[in-house]
Amino acid sequence: MANEWITELRVLIDDGRLLTSPADCYSYSFDGSFGSYLPEAVVQAQSTEEVSNVLKLANQRNIPVYPRGQGTSMSGGPLPVKGGIVLDVSQWNERLDIYPEDMVAVVSPGVITSDIHEKANEHELMYPPDPSSSHVSTIAGNLAENSGGPRGLKYGVTKDYVIGLEVVTPEGNIIRTGGRTIKNVTGYDLTKLIIGSEGMLGVITEATLKLIPKPASVRTLMVTFDTLVEAGGAISELLTSNIFPSKMELMDQASLQAVEQYSAAGLPTDVEALILIELDGHPLALEEEIQQTVTLCRQLGARDISVPEKPEEAKKLWEARKQVSPAIVQWKPTKVAEDITVPRSKIPDMCERLIDIRKRYQLHLVVFGHAGDGNLHPNIICDKRDHEEMQRVEQAVEEIFQSAVQLGGTLSGEHGIGTMKSPFMEMELGQTGIDMMKRIKQAWDPKDILNPGKMFPEPGQKLVLRDD
Amino acid sequence: MANEWITELRVLIDDGRLLTSPADCYSYSFDGSFGSYLPEAVVQAQSTEEVSNVLKLANQRNIPVYPRGQGTSMSGGPLPVKGGIVLDVSQWNERLDIYPEDMVAVVSPGVITSDIHEKANEHELMYPPDPSSSHVSTIAGNLAENSGGPRGLKYGVTKDYVIGLEVVTPEGNIIRTGGRTIKNVTGYDLTKLIIGSEGMLGVITEATLKLIPKPASVRTLMVTFDTLVEAGGAISELLTSNIFPSKMELMDQASLQAVEQYSAAGLPTDVEALILIELDGHPLALEEEIQQTVTLCRQLGARDISVPEKPEEAKKLWEARKQVSPAIVQWKPTKVAEDITVPRSKIPDMCERLIDIRKRYQLHLVVFGHAGDGNLHPNIICDKRDHEEMQRVEQAVEEIFQSAVQLGGTLSGEHGIGTMKSPFMEMELGQTGIDMMKRIKQAWDPKDILNPGKMFPEPGQKLVLRDD
Repeated sequence: MANEWITELRVLIDDGRLLTSPADCYSYSFDGSFGSYLPEAVVQAQSTEEVSNVLKLANQRNIPVYPRGQGTSMSGGPLPVKGGIVLDVSQWNERLDIYPEDMVAVVSPGVITSDIHEKANEHELMYPPDPSSSHVSTIAGNLAENSGGPRGLKYGVTKDYVIGLEVVTPEGNIIRTGGRTIKNVTGYDLTKLIIGSEGMLGVITEATLKLIPKPASVRTLMVTFDTLVEAGGAISELLTSNIFPSKMELMDQASLQAVEQYSAAGLPTDVEALILIELDGHPLALEEEIQQTVTLCRQLGARDISVPEKPEEAKKLWEARKQVSPAIVQWKPTKVAEDITVPRSKIPDMCERLIDIRKRYQLHLVVFGHAGDGNLHPNIICDKRDHEEMQRVEQAVEEIFQSAVQLGGTLSGEHGIGTMKSPFMEMELGQTGIDMMKRIKQAWDPKDILNPGKMFPEPGQKLVLRDD
Repeated sequence: MANEWITELRVLIDDGRLLTSPADCYSYSFDGSFGSYLPEAVVQAQSTEEVSNVLKLANQRNIPVYPRGQGTSMSGGPLPVKGGIVLDVSQWNERLDIYPEDMVAVVSPGVITSDIHEKANEHELMYPPDPSSSHVSTIAGNLAENSGGPRGLKYGVTKDYVIGLEVVTPEGNIIRTGGRTIKNVTGYDLTKLIIGSEGMLGVITEATLKLIPKPASVRTLMVTFDTLVEAGGAISELLTSNIFPSKMELMDQASLQAVEQYSAAGLPTDVEALILIELDGHPLALEEEIQQTVTLCRQLGARDISVPEKPEEAKKLWEARKQVSPAIVQWKPTKVAEDITVPRSKIPDMCERLIDIRKRYQLHLVVFGHAGDGNLHPNIICDKRDHEEMQRVEQAVEEIFQSAVQLGGTLSGEHGIGTMKSPFMEMELGQTGIDMMKRIKQAWDPKDILNPGKMFPEPGQKLVLRDD
């Protein structure tokens, strides 16, 4: 049976871009999250027509299709959990065009996000979304998950910069949503429905991104605090002082120690928390804001404040921040990366709860994240072969989600739901909320072909992080 | 029959807030667009439970329900085209709370938009969306239509500032979407699907709005040009000069003359075009940007440039701009207000085409709008009793839409589709694009109870602006 549809696929896709050997398929069986599932075929798509043809065949033959970029997902988005075809768009990067006169970029799905940053920069423009993976992740993956990054605070997230899409629907039809204008209210906003829908409602084959003028000047401040809760309180205070930083990142002591062991970036390791702040704007305005920030941080009990004069020094600090995620896995092999988000004013409360959870479950719980927009990354470093430990991890994760929702926050700020957070959807959305989402999925993809097994919980589904 | 469901409504709604007399119903039979349709009942809802109860009854009895704010819609959004119940939320304004520590506002649907501006301002915060009707329109209407206004250029539109909703679904269930955090990727983005869906996918009963710090300083420039096309070209040039105005408005000679006749604001009437520019930010940065803008405008052939020193003088200019829409109806009784939007670089082309259309059809075509974001308001001033003239208007409107779409633009930047633009939906979206939208409507509102007869064209439907 399987052979039959693979034979049909061979007619549609060039030989070198249809992979079916177990070794090739294995490379597509995992992502940056948890678990491994072997697909039966991988298509490295390079045109809208190919995507359309694959989806039409998949609908005829009832074969699941999983869109995939570089596979850096933290929530299981591209995992082929029910077998079938992985639709890899990472080799499709022919188009990255900047149109300065319209302040937009038009990009193919496989373009690497940091290449957009660079190309926009050449035109004195900026594409603000900047997930930590931006040097390796594709724009298609960023679009599917609605990626965030540190600039969410001032500039918003991926969704805020997408004004038009070409999309292949789950049944293989080609549509265009939005366009090249900032304002567009012609019909329902399918652009923003598809962004962040985790590849379940369509395959994005081209995107038109909004760009903004590059800020004239950028400066960085590094501020340390004796306790995590103090740092959380300072973040809240700073944000109501009418200073509007472009980034405001929090790293706890464990993150600092991990980065220093991993790459010796010169960060202090004897403090419980560090805040990295970036301000941007006119140079004269910046000078004033830096002074205000320094004064305020002193009043809020900061231990040390440093303001690097040279851009290279500042760059080094931001690179160190991006190292936290790879650095923390040196201790134990398994990383359970969460990304709950709370209203800004609840950051100190959430920090307290995380410290309590860490203590009670005796876990390596590292806390860092985009604290300026309330998006924290509690990462639990563990060993999935240790069943007893993993049970504690499962309980801690559930408590982390409960705390976030109780504080008026959300399960996921930027990583998505995927397979990892689906058991907790009802906690936040209620049964009716989930039902309204399912109705859209059902109406667009009646055969459940596109990325099945994601986001919506099966009845009674629980988080299982043990390889049994 | 009718009596029966009205009797049932009486049980659900207080006497004073259920209107059924022809005189009362007549006040709800029109909006700011075209045409008049009498509802059978009006409910002035004041609680989520009431809205839910009305919708449940409407589903049982198959009665259409039309949500309505202050009825300022330019596209027919609230018109009760198939009879039934108008659900007026304009009397429901109990809640307008600012939470500075989270930089959000929580509002009831009937709150007037300019009241949000004022209240945010008290906390040194800003709610950027500012449609010309903001002093009279409700936030619920703004949310339903995804209103824009002059700040779209730099700050985006209503949708960009809504992070959470309470919504009653077409079947009367209550859901909450999003929340109080900037980042939220828990499931599909129902918030942004509902905003701009013109009251067809749910009744918004509460909204959480994102606020931003109020700019430290604001300045205005008024620049005149000898021709409209020159002004259009200058707008494009200014926008690629790395200056990022908060507003950039265009008024043609007819608009200037209309305003002067209507309220004598001191605008020049001997030029073909005027651009009103607002810059905001740090005072020192502003001083520099004003100089740059003045120099650039001179190079681009501006006739006169003035930079009011006093805030009151600037305020007067902006008030004059808001007068265009009411002012132009002094000439003839009927106003057909369009709001096509083109990519910024196509503004000069669109201006040329509008001038050509005005000549060929011999119509009072006035051009003004938010030119900085490509959103133009070609308004045709006519008399709906003059059938021959109205036929020319219909043809001109169709050509305006065709031109916008040919230039890569859209039918509607901020007014919505409603009844007025539905015949042209396929021109922009294609049959498949419309079909994907209809599937959502069908899945959420299988009995087509909520705001039927809007957005989607009936087979063969054409624009008819004649009262036959």
